[in-house]
Amino acid sequence: MSLALIIPDRKLDDLQQRLAQALPDTEIEVWPQIRNPAAVEFAVVWKQPHGSLASLPALQAVQCFGAGVDAILADPTLPALPIARIVDPTLTDTMVRYLDGVVSYYRLRLDVFSAQQQQKQWKPKSPRKIAHIAVLGLGELGAAAATHFASLGYSVTGWARTPKQLEHVSCFHAAEGLTKAVADADIVICLLPLTPATQQMLSEGFFSSLKPGAIFINVARGDIVDETALQAALDNGQLQAACLDVFCQEPLPAEHPLWSHPAVLITPHVSAVTDVGAVVEQIAENYRRNQRGEALLNPVDIGRGY
Amino acid sequence: MSLALIIPDRKLDDLQQRLAQALPDTEIEVWPQIRNPAAVEFAVVWKQPHGSLASLPALQAVQCFGAGVDAILADPTLPALPIARIVDPTLTDTMVRYLDGVVSYYRLRLDVFSAQQQQKQWKPKSPRKIAHIAVLGLGELGAAAATHFASLGYSVTGWARTPKQLEHVSCFHAAEGLTKAVADADIVICLLPLTPATQQMLSEGFFSSLKPGAIFINVARGDIVDETALQAALDNGQLQAACLDVFCQEPLPAEHPLWSHPAVLITPHVSAVTDVGAVVEQIAENYRRNQRGEALLNPVDIGRGY
Repeated sequence: MSLALIIPDRKLDDLQQRLAQALPDTEIEVWPQIRNPAAVEFAVVWKQPHGSLASLPALQAVQCFGAGVDAILADPTLPALPIARIVDPTLTDTMVRYLDGVVSYYRLRLDVFSAQQQQKQWKPKSPRKIAHIAVLGLGELGAAAATHFASLGYSVTGWARTPKQLEHVSCFHAAEGLTKAVADADIVICLLPLTPATQQMLSEGFFSSLKPGAIFINVARGDIVDETALQAALDNGQLQAACLDVFCQEPLPAEHPLWSHPAVLITPHVSAVTDVGAVVEQIAENYRRNQRGEALLNPVDIGRGY
Repeated sequence: MSLALIIPDRKLDDLQQRLAQALPDTEIEVWPQIRNPAAVEFAVVWKQPHGSLASLPALQAVQCFGAGVDAILADPTLPALPIARIVDPTLTDTMVRYLDGVVSYYRLRLDVFSAQQQQKQWKPKSPRKIAHIAVLGLGELGAAAATHFASLGYSVTGWARTPKQLEHVSCFHAAEGLTKAVADADIVICLLPLTPATQQMLSEGFFSSLKPGAIFINVARGDIVDETALQAALDNGQLQAACLDVFCQEPLPAEHPLWSHPAVLITPHVSAVTDVGAVVEQIAENYRRNQRGEALLNPVDIGRGY
């Protein structure tokens, strides 16, 4: 029996070595050089090539190497097996710190002062008044972000598909709750999971329901947003600014107009990168649980998509 | 008896109106249209024209309209009178939030990603490792900043002219302590008062004593820094970046090379602007104390300069 890493385009030496230490009796194989496909019972996966999991006849369980399993579920040949995802407190902390920094960036008008610096313009101005933050998606990451901003004294609303309760956060749910959740928000943060229900969900109607001049931050998945509608909302001033960490196509193609939009800050999908050291034990524990026939930690509801 | 506002280049309607409400029996005069100079017993001052205070024969006390009194003390005709400064908890909070946002900006590499966005380059990278922050100056603002970063888990050193004690901050003092305070710092924050002793204090020797690749933030006064030495340290990579909110000459002249230095973020002296609403009562109270012959709140030690 062995464990396979199916994580294209990433150096895996460190992960392989740490897993070998945590699971000394297990062979750690690395796709695409899998020597014995028939022995692979457990796969650690991120954006796997479609068909790669189906080619492992003895596979029993899939461990996603991140929080979002949308890329796994998009594989039409995906075997019907239990899937677990990473719920990494470090990942949550990384995400919250990213969002905290980006909110401060806008609060302090660093976008405006940077642009004025290009023009050698000295125009002092008080911080932006940011009173209300809306968080879309109240899973691990969304709930942590909403709670964080509430603890700093912001008025925070949250939205999720189903009813949620969070201390000091006004939670809304279902399609009819979305407009209420974002109506007064100065900043809207997208932390939704990408599912068939959220695909292109934030489109023209959504952006026009925001407060004029709102700021939009997407740290979830690019495909949740209709990028054409987003760009139109930026062009007509309905959105004052947007910070985008995720895109429909990544890397963002050089010819994409978002690169040069003056109201857009682009970061290259860095808001929450899984830290190997923080998650090795979680992966090893799920491997052991699978060997013992026990339920996995942090299982994914495949029908729901997260 | 009356109170005079000597605060050039700033709209004073709001301050005048609020002080008139707080001190209903007192006339509030506004320089340069002072109708009865002989009646002015109390002056609220920011960057006063030299000679303006000396022209008020009945003046008894000076209230600085900010935290730093260097511009008041630079007046060679300054009468020998008690001077008070603003110690504004809002000001402290504003400053700490500015610094927090700027540290996050560098931690998240928003400077790097912004520059890469100009080039349409997608180069994901983990946050900068910022473990150690040094704060120079441990007055109201410096102590609050040092304590704040310590509470976030950073290793924090502080430096002041005289010995200080702050919880969770390693404090150094005197000239020989400065090198120790900054030796390991990833980020050095200047919050020193501008005094004859600190004038041009941060010069070539100081910058070469920093850890190579350190980041420098100045939110105190431009004249504390030798701007030529700062620029040289940026050019030779000894400093990785600098965020500058204050300059020897403000507004920074359009021809100044710092405007276009790729490693510099310029903000137009916004890190801590006195908020009128937050300080009116402090000024009114000092006016009343002066009338009653009592000691002023937040007095300045003129010999020391702060």
